[in-house]
Amino acid sequence: MNTASISRYPVPKLEDLPDDIRARILQVQEKAGFIPNVFLTLAHRPDEFRAFFAYHDALMLRDSGLTKAEREMIVVATSGANDCVYCVVAHGAILRVYAKNPLVADQVAVNYRKADITPRQKAMLAFAVKVALDSAAIDEADFQALRAHGFGDEDIWDIGGIAAFFALSNRMANLISMRPNDEFYGMGRTPKP
Amino acid sequence: MNTASISRYPVPKLEDLPDDIRARILQVQEKAGFIPNVFLTLAHRPDEFRAFFAYHDALMLRDSGLTKAEREMIVVATSGANDCVYCVVAHGAILRVYAKNPLVADQVAVNYRKADITPRQKAMLAFAVKVALDSAAIDEADFQALRAHGFGDEDIWDIGGIAAFFALSNRMANLISMRPNDEFYGMGRTPKP
Amino acid sequence: MNTASISRYPVPKLEDLPDDIRARILQVQEKAGFIPNVFLTLAHRPDEFRAFFAYHDALMLRDSGLTKAEREMIVVATSGANDCVYCVVAHGAILRVYAKNPLVADQVAVNYRKADITPRQKAMLAFAVKVALDSAAIDEADFQALRAHGFGDEDIWDIGGIAAFFALSNRMANLISMRPNDEFYGMGRTPKP
Amino acid sequence: MNTASISRYPVPKLEDLPDDIRARILQVQEKAGFIPNVFLTLAHRPDEFRAFFAYHDALMLRDSGLTKAEREMIVVATSGANDCVYCVVAHGAILRVYAKNPLVADQVAVNYRKADITPRQKAMLAFAVKVALDSAAIDEADFQALRAHGFGDEDIWDIGGIAAFFALSNRMANLISMRPNDEFYGMGRTPKP
Amino acid sequence: MNTASISRYPVPKLEDLPDDIRARILQVQEKAGFIPNVFLTLAHRPDEFRAFFAYHDALMLRDSGLTKAEREMIVVATSGANDCVYCVVAHGAILRVYAKNPLVADQVAVNYRKADITPRQKAMLAFAVKVALDSAAIDEADFQALRAHGFGDEDIWDIGGIAAFFALSNRMANLISMRPNDEFYGMGRTPKP
Amino acid sequence: MNTASISRYPVPKLEDLPDDIRARILQVQEKAGFIPNVFLTLAHRPDEFRAFFAYHDALMLRDSGLTKAEREMIVVATSGANDCVYCVVAHGAILRVYAKNPLVADQVAVNYRKADITPRQKAMLAFAVKVALDSAAIDEADFQALRAHGFGDEDIWDIGGIAAFFALSNRMANLISMRPNDEFYGMGRTPKP
Repeated sequence: MNTASISRYPVPKLEDLPDDIRARILQVQEKAGFIPNVFLTLAHRPDEFRAFFAYHDALMLRDSGLTKAEREMIVVATSGANDCVYCVVAHGAILRVYAKNPLVADQVAVNYRKADITPRQKAMLAFAVKVALDSAAIDEADFQALRAHGFGDEDIWDIGGIAAFFALSNRMANLISMRPNDEFYGMGRTPKP
Repeated sequence: MNTASISRYPVPKLEDLPDDIRARILQVQEKAGFIPNVFLTLAHRPDEFRAFFAYHDALMLRDSGLTKAEREMIVVATSGANDCVYCVVAHGAILRVYAKNPLVADQVAVNYRKADITPRQKAMLAFAVKVALDSAAIDEADFQALRAHGFGDEDIWDIGGIAAFFALSNRMANLISMRPNDEFYGMGRTPKP
Repeated sequence: MNTASISRYPVPKLEDLPDDIRARILQVQEKAGFIPNVFLTLAHRPDEFRAFFAYHDALMLRDSGLTKAEREMIVVATSGANDCVYCVVAHGAILRVYAKNPLVADQVAVNYRKADITPRQKAMLAFAVKVALDSAAIDEADFQALRAHGFGDEDIWDIGGIAAFFALSNRMANLISMRPNDEFYGMGRTPKP
Repeated sequence: MNTASISRYPVPKLEDLPDDIRARILQVQEKAGFIPNVFLTLAHRPDEFRAFFAYHDALMLRDSGLTKAEREMIVVATSGANDCVYCVVAHGAILRVYAKNPLVADQVAVNYRKADITPRQKAMLAFAVKVALDSAAIDEADFQALRAHGFGDEDIWDIGGIAAFFALSNRMANLISMRPNDEFYGMGRTPKP
Repeated sequence: MNTASISRYPVPKLEDLPDDIRARILQVQEKAGFIPNVFLTLAHRPDEFRAFFAYHDALMLRDSGLTKAEREMIVVATSGANDCVYCVVAHGAILRVYAKNPLVADQVAVNYRKADITPRQKAMLAFAVKVALDSAAIDEADFQALRAHGFGDEDIWDIGGIAAFFALSNRMANLISMRPNDEFYGMGRTPKP
Repeated sequence: MNTASISRYPVPKLEDLPDDIRARILQVQEKAGFIPNVFLTLAHRPDEFRAFFAYHDALMLRDSGLTKAEREMIVVATSGANDCVYCVVAHGAILRVYAKNPLVADQVAVNYRKADITPRQKAMLAFAVKVALDSAAIDEADFQALRAHGFGDEDIWDIGGIAAFFALSNRMANLISMRPNDEFYGMGRTPKP
């Protein structure tokens, strides 16, 4: 692995990291089979790393009216809108796995309006992309449009919150030129029987 | 195959098509192993079909200072800029095959600046994306920037011409909701030894 | 005629052109009284020339629910949106002639909302400009808006197809700095009795 | 004349206007041979009328390092950028007359970069369009670029001031749907011997 | 006072100004307690100064269906949209004074949708900002939306006219780097009992 | 205090909050004299609250080559670019206090190019606003521009990281209509002797 190429910034060695961060990384590695570069590259700043993943987990792992696949759709659609290679590739892989669908991630990354998703999911992504690109214009009508599809206010916080968190994440990835692991590109492309 | 879903418009049956168009489609099918949906969906209008593929071939098959992979990079980068699912997915597959590189298409589709390509290729894509998004502002300085990378004026016509042709192609695909074949998504993702 | 000034690229002499292209150009010259520069400048690449005009004719000469003047309105409105001097000037002239109206072309080129055209034509141009500038956002509601004005789906293909073809044409004209013939500026400015 | 159609707002009759305004209008009529609609439509509000034309004259009639044709170029280029039919058509006519050039107005209205003007005039229009569209980003480098073409600081005030005044004028014309007189479209299209 | 820093251009001395301009400035100084820099900086060009303030007064002092505070809201909202420091700061102060509200100016300058104003005022500002940023798209539906809130057509001219006048004003301030007086920042921040 | 108006979402009572969050809030209240609404409104989701403030502190309290005032400038400039009332008002107050300057916050919120700051600080804010609005285009030239002003790579991470974190923060504030406390508007407006 050529760590020089995964970030503009120095990438720490696992053995030099604080215990909690190293433990988190090893846990991910055991589950995924490799270490996603977001963990190694953000570990350059341990305090920001801890806050980043705490925020990520708070939104992506909580009980929610949104499925895990839907939450990844939000990540992929807004990361596409922000032209973030790392997040489109890495979360595209996760979306394929969660949705058990080898096609949907590439569709959502380019244009969610043409994706194999439900009208409810398209409304969800329209809201998420508006939060990503023009949050100052969000108003009551946008909330009503989601409620008409059965989303509750906590679901809407989830949608907007994920879009907001990946506004941060996309900018960090673009700032440091975070490189997606090669493993992500092919993940989930063969539907499991 | 559910032809209803690959276009907003009626999709002709092979046996109903004019001979020359059917012959072209069967030739593609033999080579690719399947019929890319662009052939079936545009065949709804035979005269436009013939002109479309004549234009495509004139640019994409001619002798050029650009490799075939470079030409596909231009297609993928500009189609990404235009949010065209069909062209990103289909030409992403072709780019992976020509470049013998399973990663580059997804990178170029999202942000060519972060792709595993040469500075010369980044300059080529910067020009192509400017033609796609702001062609009225193209001026002598843009030509000089390409010449500084060794591109000749005929190469620059190729770059701009491909960006211009896919400006048309992306709009037609978006207009008729052209759906990429499922086969494209996984093509070229395993590098051949 | 100073051919150097009508294109950044070499402009072929009539006698050096392939027979079919020269024949087409002489035919146009006989009809128009001069050779529009798009013919001479694109003839630098004969195969692209043939495909370009085949595509043009397939859309602009076919039987259609749109009048020829309406089709030229689409060209002028989208070429205005793309800031293309050649297409606004040349097709503005053709629009004045077809519409027998010396005012409408300048209006449509600047802002179709303020033009002397019908509400149905304004809806047609709103769709065309959306195809020109934001085709990824075209959806069923846009089709419904046109159907409400009596446009059929083939008419809508015509509208979108013309906007898409001139997306290509505008970019080529901007790329090569195609210069409109002086003759176009004054054509059709005096309504025929 | 159907005054109802030249403005969304009531158009006063000449005999009902204050003397100074009627005098000004009659003077223009005598010189031009007709009354440009901007005079009749803005006369709906006499105080604003007086200030508007006082401002116009202060900029457009003063001694300046810019020729009258150059000042009209600024009007046409920025009005094109603002999609204002009235100002493009009316000032396009004036530009043709002042420049004794039947082509330049249509060129400048669509894309000044492709117009038959000098590099100095292109720099002038680049600055004017930046004032029109993004004045907050004007900085010292923009001033330096003009000084390199020999513009003095008072010339630059003229350029920016005209762009600023027509920012107002374009918005008023768009607000009230001010219609250009038919006479403007054909003015200055035949170069005087 | 360091006059060099309030404008890129020379700032005249009071004693060198024409009598009418000096009188106007002294009158403002007496009322406000200081001379707002817009008076000194624009006095560099006396004719434009006279027209500018005549236009300003015609719109801002006339009898209107809009309160003076509402007119200042329009100034602040559109000046915020145009990123004009002078107008946001100076008219923000005036808005605070007229509205007897220390909060509303900062809200309106950043995002009128989140301001402590009525739905009618939000509709007014939505229209004003559309005039400021996209006046070519103003159409009958925009007029209807204001009429639904009880605005008459003369009120709508006022709204659009103020937005149009400050399109000019913002560009002049940005052009000459007009600096707000220090006094404005703190004005009206303590509500009067 | 009318908690209903500070967020679209329920605002928890202090006594219902987890101990750590209540402790943090009371600590802030003691220092500031009031509870900034960001604390109460985000406490609706305790896990996100903890991560949010951990991230905030990691960036804003760390040892850095940027002063605290400079970090607040980044917040204010990017929050202005994102039209976020809460962040402009609240962090504008903090910037005034840290910079001991009653003017700079309002300037930076509207247009940092016209603010009373150093060229180095303008370069810093140009980078921050590019991260906020167009992070995909950040490249080596942007890093070089900052290094030319003496910023080290860790300083650049700080600049970009703060812009990225407030991309999140602005979107959350816009999503939930977070209202700034009245206290912020007047803070730091009288320079301390």
